[in-house]
Amino acid sequence: MRVRNALYVQGGGPTAVVNTTAAAVIEACRSHRDQIRTVYAARFGMPGVLNEDLVDTSGEPEAVLNALRNTPGSAFGSARYRLASRDEAPGVHDRFASVLAAHDIGYLFYNGGNGSAATTLQLAALSQDLGLDVTCVHIPKTIDNDLMGTDCSPGFASAAKYLAVSMQEAATDLASTHTTSTRVFILESMGRHTGWLVAAMGLATEEGDRAPSMLLFAEMPFEEGRFLARLEEIVARHGYCVVGASEGLRTQSGAFVESLPAARQGNNEQLGGVAPRLAKLVRETLGLKCHWATADYLQRSARHLASATDVAHADGVGKTAVQVALEGQTGVMPVIVRASEDPYRWKIGVSELGDIACREKTVPRNFMSDDGYSITSRCRNYLLPLIQGEAFPPFRCGLPVHVKMNGLLVPPRLPRWTIAS
Amino acid sequence: MRVRNALYVQGGGPTAVVNTTAAAVIEACRSHRDQIRTVYAARFGMPGVLNEDLVDTSGEPEAVLNALRNTPGSAFGSARYRLASRDEAPGVHDRFASVLAAHDIGYLFYNGGNGSAATTLQLAALSQDLGLDVTCVHIPKTIDNDLMGTDCSPGFASAAKYLAVSMQEAATDLASTHTTSTRVFILESMGRHTGWLVAAMGLATEEGDRAPSMLLFAEMPFEEGRFLARLEEIVARHGYCVVGASEGLRTQSGAFVESLPAARQGNNEQLGGVAPRLAKLVRETLGLKCHWATADYLQRSARHLASATDVAHADGVGKTAVQVALEGQTGVMPVIVRASEDPYRWKIGVSELGDIACREKTVPRNFMSDDGYSITSRCRNYLLPLIQGEAFPPFRCGLPVHVKMNGLLVPPRLPRWTIAS
Repeated sequence: MRVRNALYVQGGGPTAVVNTTAAAVIEACRSHRDQIRTVYAARFGMPGVLNEDLVDTSGEPEAVLNALRNTPGSAFGSARYRLASRDEAPGVHDRFASVLAAHDIGYLFYNGGNGSAATTLQLAALSQDLGLDVTCVHIPKTIDNDLMGTDCSPGFASAAKYLAVSMQEAATDLASTHTTSTRVFILESMGRHTGWLVAAMGLATEEGDRAPSMLLFAEMPFEEGRFLARLEEIVARHGYCVVGASEGLRTQSGAFVESLPAARQGNNEQLGGVAPRLAKLVRETLGLKCHWATADYLQRSARHLASATDVAHADGVGKTAVQVALEGQTGVMPVIVRASEDPYRWKIGVSELGDIACREKTVPRNFMSDDGYSITSRCRNYLLPLIQGEAFPPFRCGLPVHVKMNGLLVPPRLPRWTIAS
Repeated sequence: MRVRNALYVQGGGPTAVVNTTAAAVIEACRSHRDQIRTVYAARFGMPGVLNEDLVDTSGEPEAVLNALRNTPGSAFGSARYRLASRDEAPGVHDRFASVLAAHDIGYLFYNGGNGSAATTLQLAALSQDLGLDVTCVHIPKTIDNDLMGTDCSPGFASAAKYLAVSMQEAATDLASTHTTSTRVFILESMGRHTGWLVAAMGLATEEGDRAPSMLLFAEMPFEEGRFLARLEEIVARHGYCVVGASEGLRTQSGAFVESLPAARQGNNEQLGGVAPRLAKLVRETLGLKCHWATADYLQRSARHLASATDVAHADGVGKTAVQVALEGQTGVMPVIVRASEDPYRWKIGVSELGDIACREKTVPRNFMSDDGYSITSRCRNYLLPLIQGEAFPPFRCGLPVHVKMNGLLVPPRLPRWTIAS
């Protein structure tokens, strides 16, 4: 077997544990030096491949890789990237092929979400069409938990734990002061099309519809009147209520409750701001004092509160990705398989990307209560194992230790690429 | 010495460690059974005293008190309460006197901020005027760190650690994705009149004005043009910038940049929403993609990330409060004294409430850089010792263990009180 190089690419938004996967991939490759010479990483995602902007990870000592496991963000930089079809953009496809060939890439690891899965599939096809012999493996990562084919997506469980803990803590605040102060607290989570992160906030309060909490899932059309009536009833009974809301909450007409025009053409509308919007509604309609928080990037970078289970998953998919690549499986993705729920046991499986790319796993209806405002025990049983275990990072001088990669740049071997080519 | 009872009251917003102080007070009282028979606690703050709504803490086993130390919120409930002068509201003063007498209260511990300090002073005077012989001790607590007479206020350091860690983590997110996504991230902290919590966010990035960060202190008038120019310059140099902003940020004319009318008469305007307001400005003026987060109650209930130093302070002021009360010192407050900065050493002192009540400690000008957008090393040296050490709570099933008090209600001995009386 010819010794080839590997290329690792991160795509989409960071998670608390995506760098654990990065470290796992690099370490697993290093343990197969007979088959993999060097692990390169693209700077700032797929555009870094096109720009031949690569770093050689050989320069990173083991201690740095260990520290990387505890560092949030995307170590090599990331980007949202949509690869046009070969018909639409043959130049881009050719450029990918040239870069992969120029650096003798035999293994491509793309660590991302739905969009990245689709791109990995395209690259696998490209490799086959052009006879490049590049094994393309997608590695799952998304806080949204919307990837098909896997029981959960690495990154989700840590964001879920962060939101559940945050909501639980904020609920103690309202329980303390509601008689003379705030009656309603709204915590906004990410999730454009799916309410998995909102579901996680359901873990913060007791089970069932007797808890002073409400959840507003991205999957459920927001009915203003029904929401307000229910909220008023809960506040009358308990004195206060905490509300978890998806940033992607939509009205019955399908429009986002709160959104901004896209920052650049071709991008999605920017979300964020559902919580203050709802707080205004509650205040003006019910006259209740209402506070709100929007966690935004904090929820996907909160490595300090990562789930140990999530860290293990992130490590597992990284290691398995290398293993299946060396077995020559292309166009696939390592997935988390729930072998047993109680006690929770998991293993890593492998799925075909064709079954995964461009699809979205939403929260099933039977994970939500009849009224749609809380989670069922079925959902609780799904979520609870995922947030088990703490994986606190080391702290120095009161703050978590984050590592910076040495980032040894790889000298380009090709002419500079411009988008026009 | 006659054996009397003690009354513990919480005032104002919760902190991550105020319950540590509560546990310390109760435990210290228990170790002086020759002088203190029972520790009562008022439910929901001072109005609980007026309503004779008290709980008997004798029913709380040691294990509950230990768990209380790790539980955020205000265990017995809290309220913001302003006691009118005796001339303005003689009925209220008489009622306080009646309740204290009815339950043979010899020691009053009021655990709160500036407003509570003033009330404690009034109650000490009332006790003296009416010959009640109640020793009144105020115990410091506020995330705002605006109490005079103490090196820092218990509760501040944990919120500071939470915000510094959150900002550090969010900065990794921007460092990862700014080339194709978000350029500016704004994190809003609490702080109506003081920027101590914003200063803490300065710990998240490297020292000096070379870091990709800006701070907007409540103490510094917000100059829109200068802010935008500086932000643009930082983004041009680093590719991105993280911004910490006080909710109490004011324009040059003195108006809050963002506020809501008070929820009820006599209350302050409600703050919160500076971050989305600034994000809109950045987006519309500079055309930069901007994300924002508002931590709101999360920052004052984040017991999961409490500073171990803060926990020790909160315990220390609680214990010392009991000690000075038993010595007969009234109208005083235990304070944190910085005995040495490097290495950091602290001890508990005692200050007269007359020097503390109704005053506010703002961030000194020499804690801010010349341009007012970052902290100086002087400020860093002040802040860093406070966030040292982690005090992770125990977790069960993936979530922190929070305790609920048994809350044994004390049978009222007085006629029901109505505000009119």
